[in-house]
Amino acid sequence: MRPFSLAHSVPLSSPSSHSRYLRFVSISFPIFHKFNSHPKFLDISPKAPLLNVRSCSSISAKSSSELRKKRPTSEPDEKLRALRQLFSKPGIGIDAYIIPSQDAHQSEFIAECYMRRTYISGFTGSAGTAVVTKDKAVLWTDGRYFLQAEKQLSSNWILMRAGNLGVPTTGEWLNDVLAPGGRIGIDPFLFSSDAAEELRQAIAKKNHELVFLYDINLVDEIWKESRPKPLSKPIRVHDLKYAGLDVVSKLSSLRSELADAGSSAIVVSMLDEIAWLLNLRGSDIPHSPVMYAYLIVEIDKAKLFVDNSKVTTDVMENLNSAGIELRPYESILSEVESLAAQGARLWLDRSSANAAIVNTYNSACERYYEHLEKLGNTQMNDGLNSWSAAPTGIYKVSPVAFAKAIKNDAELEGMRNCHLRDAAALAQFWAWMEEEIHKDVKLTEVDVADKLLEFRSRQSGFIDTSFDTISGSGANGAIIHYKPEPDSCSIVDANKLFLLDSGAQYVDGTTDITRTVHFGEPTAREKECFTRVLKGHIALDQAVFPENTPGFVLDAFARSSLWKTGLDYRHGTGHGVGAALNVHEGPQSISFRYGNMTPLQKGMVVSNEPGYYEDHAFGIRIENLVSVKGVDTPNRFGGIDYLGFEKLTFVPIQTKLIDLSLLSAEDVTWLNDYHSKVWEKVSPLLDGSALQWLRSNTRPLVKQ
Amino acid sequence: MRPFSLAHSVPLSSPSSHSRYLRFVSISFPIFHKFNSHPKFLDISPKAPLLNVRSCSSISAKSSSELRKKRPTSEPDEKLRALRQLFSKPGIGIDAYIIPSQDAHQSEFIAECYMRRTYISGFTGSAGTAVVTKDKAVLWTDGRYFLQAEKQLSSNWILMRAGNLGVPTTGEWLNDVLAPGGRIGIDPFLFSSDAAEELRQAIAKKNHELVFLYDINLVDEIWKESRPKPLSKPIRVHDLKYAGLDVVSKLSSLRSELADAGSSAIVVSMLDEIAWLLNLRGSDIPHSPVMYAYLIVEIDKAKLFVDNSKVTTDVMENLNSAGIELRPYESILSEVESLAAQGARLWLDRSSANAAIVNTYNSACERYYEHLEKLGNTQMNDGLNSWSAAPTGIYKVSPVAFAKAIKNDAELEGMRNCHLRDAAALAQFWAWMEEEIHKDVKLTEVDVADKLLEFRSRQSGFIDTSFDTISGSGANGAIIHYKPEPDSCSIVDANKLFLLDSGAQYVDGTTDITRTVHFGEPTAREKECFTRVLKGHIALDQAVFPENTPGFVLDAFARSSLWKTGLDYRHGTGHGVGAALNVHEGPQSISFRYGNMTPLQKGMVVSNEPGYYEDHAFGIRIENLVSVKGVDTPNRFGGIDYLGFEKLTFVPIQTKLIDLSLLSAEDVTWLNDYHSKVWEKVSPLLDGSALQWLRSNTRPLVKQ
Repeated sequence: MRPFSLAHSVPLSSPSSHSRYLRFVSISFPIFHKFNSHPKFLDISPKAPLLNVRSCSSISAKSSSELRKKRPTSEPDEKLRALRQLFSKPGIGIDAYIIPSQDAHQSEFIAECYMRRTYISGFTGSAGTAVVTKDKAVLWTDGRYFLQAEKQLSSNWILMRAGNLGVPTTGEWLNDVLAPGGRIGIDPFLFSSDAAEELRQAIAKKNHELVFLYDINLVDEIWKESRPKPLSKPIRVHDLKYAGLDVVSKLSSLRSELADAGSSAIVVSMLDEIAWLLNLRGSDIPHSPVMYAYLIVEIDKAKLFVDNSKVTTDVMENLNSAGIELRPYESILSEVESLAAQGARLWLDRSSANAAIVNTYNSACERYYEHLEKLGNTQMNDGLNSWSAAPTGIYKVSPVAFAKAIKNDAELEGMRNCHLRDAAALAQFWAWMEEEIHKDVKLTEVDVADKLLEFRSRQSGFIDTSFDTISGSGANGAIIHYKPEPDSCSIVDANKLFLLDSGAQYVDGTTDITRTVHFGEPTAREKECFTRVLKGHIALDQAVFPENTPGFVLDAFARSSLWKTGLDYRHGTGHGVGAALNVHEGPQSISFRYGNMTPLQKGMVVSNEPGYYEDHAFGIRIENLVSVKGVDTPNRFGGIDYLGFEKLTFVPIQTKLIDLSLLSAEDVTWLNDYHSKVWEKVSPLLDGSALQWLRSNTRPLVKQ
Repeated sequence: MRPFSLAHSVPLSSPSSHSRYLRFVSISFPIFHKFNSHPKFLDISPKAPLLNVRSCSSISAKSSSELRKKRPTSEPDEKLRALRQLFSKPGIGIDAYIIPSQDAHQSEFIAECYMRRTYISGFTGSAGTAVVTKDKAVLWTDGRYFLQAEKQLSSNWILMRAGNLGVPTTGEWLNDVLAPGGRIGIDPFLFSSDAAEELRQAIAKKNHELVFLYDINLVDEIWKESRPKPLSKPIRVHDLKYAGLDVVSKLSSLRSELADAGSSAIVVSMLDEIAWLLNLRGSDIPHSPVMYAYLIVEIDKAKLFVDNSKVTTDVMENLNSAGIELRPYESILSEVESLAAQGARLWLDRSSANAAIVNTYNSACERYYEHLEKLGNTQMNDGLNSWSAAPTGIYKVSPVAFAKAIKNDAELEGMRNCHLRDAAALAQFWAWMEEEIHKDVKLTEVDVADKLLEFRSRQSGFIDTSFDTISGSGANGAIIHYKPEPDSCSIVDANKLFLLDSGAQYVDGTTDITRTVHFGEPTAREKECFTRVLKGHIALDQAVFPENTPGFVLDAFARSSLWKTGLDYRHGTGHGVGAALNVHEGPQSISFRYGNMTPLQKGMVVSNEPGYYEDHAFGIRIENLVSVKGVDTPNRFGGIDYLGFEKLTFVPIQTKLIDLSLLSAEDVTWLNDYHSKVWEKVSPLLDGSALQWLRSNTRPLVKQ
């Protein structure tokens, strides 16, 4: 879901509006930094990352009912007072301090100990930027959170409704309120290098200086004892039978990419990239099986910067055998400095690497140059230390993101397998739910999400939910980012549409599925809308396209049937999904963000999730995961491959909601084929009422 | 048709490959300059601009059989010797001279007197760049013309096969062969400002200087008496009943755009923009009803730079009543200079305005600055002459291109009407042709084109063909840019597919239509391919889409059915078409050139022309023109308009070529509806065998 509700009619990827858009989000939305020139999957996915405020230490999934909004105990103004006192301390001396939502790795979900913006402002939404000056405290958030922020912010805070007409960006506002020549402090670990640079340029217009406070995070300073401890849950080895490729091979491929690019080392800072590269999984963040770490891969060695206490013997052995040394998480900057001092040409992805790392490297390179200049040119002709080999960064998109996106056979097999177990859990769940509803049991949206978690957690290899379940009855289904809360959620109404978007992390893969159902009699309107969404889903699923086709080319297939009647949806149609990793990943996407030229490639996994949302009435979304596969077409015009999709998700689509008159004969064939495969693949995993439910929900439709 | 046969699998609009691509074409293909950041309609249209070498003075269309290749009478080496002698003349002093294909207005078709590259090289293809150094003569052209260039170039010339691996660009080659610090001369009127700048940068790498020879075209200098005289055919007034909007209103809209942009004047140099803006039509160029001219529109006046002898009393009256003064065509630069000296802020589209104009303006502005500096700031505070109002260019895409692309009601009505007369001519033609073929008369491809011209010219308001007819039997149909020549064309084979792409200029509109037919028994393969092309045509025709959708979003609809079986075509699906103007116009397009973000807007006219080409076997293309219209959808999600297409072309599609098993029920309904409309609209214009033909070719299909 796009954080700002810009109408579809404004093409966001047109140069001008795109940059206008990024001006704010690059400061506020963690994931955008990573994919500045790539898919904005956060933006295109209907699921928004909502923070689990209660606990960041959950590896075992929390049921939704355990989650409660927690109001910070100290008064906001007291925190602001304490924060402002630090402004004038020696070595600080700033006029404003910016507190973004991010951790140091541009993670979509973050650990509670890093939720500094939540702590300082009291606002618990996932997206927002707090700025505190000597006399003002301001919070930017987007349309999804205006109401929540109004409730949660004290009168000490001004709310900036980002995306509304005339609302300034953070930089514009600072230029407006500070006297020229001000000093604006940030924690450089919490900004991508690109975002910090953008901010620096924005505030330079009023001669303000962006001050990097490397050694102190001012919020942590006042948070003190109440700050949750950083986690030290053990890292586990991701079995080779699921990973498919050993670490040595992955590092070897990476190293040849480094060599090709003329780079001698790379700093990997995206947590899923590190987990994928090292065949490790962690438990530091809810929903994402990753651990906080940095990784530096050089041509002949590699160093993992991670809290030692998380490293089990097993993990240690695996790291050793791949030639990876351990370093303390905190020593990343000194290592970067020492690499620069050795003349290393570091590959840095400025959209994901934080400003602390990139700036430290650049400064160290400058010192190295000065050192070389002092020594004089004559002494310097021994290869690495010659002038031509003086260190400069290689600033390119991380090659790991692309490698990770293309799943190997073992990863695809894991994805297929976990999806069948997930489908079994869902069949059990839907059978249970229909029964409860028909017994007239009052179930809240949270009850439903909890029960689904219960069924899923009985499946082998279950680890966690892959995101907070979106369980929305009636009008709640139309709130694309809806997350039911125990104290405010609705009873599921048997006479309304019910939308359920959920997913899980298994040891062998990651799932993400949305189904929309009706327990009573759907209206003709609901059926028409559902059928058009389904037709879009089918059109995309059946697409065949030449290799090197960017995902956005297929987006219109999913919308075409809705467009014909003047309907549409304001989110993308597909995002990348990790294999036993993050539920959102790039670089590919299927969206109306036409700037993402990443071609869909064999082995990529994407969601297929068109929808339709009628405000204050109902929401519809039908989501399967699919992988990109070669299609054995009778022709191969241009001598190239033609690609299509293999379905990973096998859960019935409710036929009661279909207006058969709108389906073509081909649509009906697709649906019957799909349901026949669902039965064939999932029925062996079921018995009792769930098996019954599956049978009755996979019966073929007959179009007269 | 894309000039280079880059595989579809290379996304041309990706930043790197795009710029690589433009490196050559910006020097070689006239139309690319205009649309550097806009549709490359030349590139996306199957029709390539092939030169009418015999005569540039034809307003009355020439039948194809009158056209003969003309070999220049003097020997090429003599020309080269004469040209090189000029290199060392005082005031010239150059080491190389570049002769592009263009006229001074980036026209797609050009008058013969401007065919300097053809004259100097003997190569008559539409696309190519000649470069002559003191000891070498080199010609670049693209894959369409390799064979032709090999035949036509004497041994004094080296052929550069542009697009082939390792073939350098013009700039690269010059850098390679000239000693550093060389002087490379061009006629600055024949390069767009953008193209000249690109070239200047390329050759600066070897310290070469790009020398603008304003006052002399070296080819004209040696061409002398044998050079065709510039034309002086009278300009005519484009009747208000066809134009729909008077000149005063058009100028008034343009002026408010100037004011909004802070500009005090605009130089319009695209000939179709001038013709559209002034409701005038000319006869200087085959196929394009335009006249050679420049136009400068200021806030309070306007000046047309045109050969006086073309201006009739009627035209003069019309110009007078709109407050437009006449100036000699040759005085454009002195006017630009004097505007700069008055402090005018000129709006210049650097992709279409030639380098002579842009550079003259910039130099004059510099002199103006220097003058102001001498006078001193204190005397300069009277508004226009103050420092802040010192002249600088406003470099933006011409607003006239957009205004012209959106047809008003009268223009659309003219387009509808002329398409019906054109359809009547085509029905007569097809009836005649079927009869001839069945009588076993041997018709050449040129005979066929001539006969079609004969039928068309009998229609009221007929003026000219809108491009050279593509009449291709069998394998010739697979040559996308094919133009039959009397001395080499084929006999139309009744047992092969026959592709006919043609169009006309009428007083009220412009047509462009392709039909593919078979006079015998098509093979199953031919039928399958034809049917898939037809399904693509239908899918695009039926598309409904939200306003602000760029054309490329719809391109995949037209390819989807072909893709499913591994087929595709290497040209775009739709180009803009002028109203009684150029058959190719921007800025919109429907293509896999994903960089063209121009949204399709109500009133735009585009072609819908998917195809499939099997090398050495057959070509298929089905082309209608359509206009973009609002669709009265039951919903209007987002509060915006939903758009679709209105068909302009009403000519039967041959049902014999359809494999009914591949058509959906909806496809059949579309086809039957279309044919019923064809009958309804065109039958009143026909009698005799043509009426019979129309009846039998519009009978409904029945899908069992």
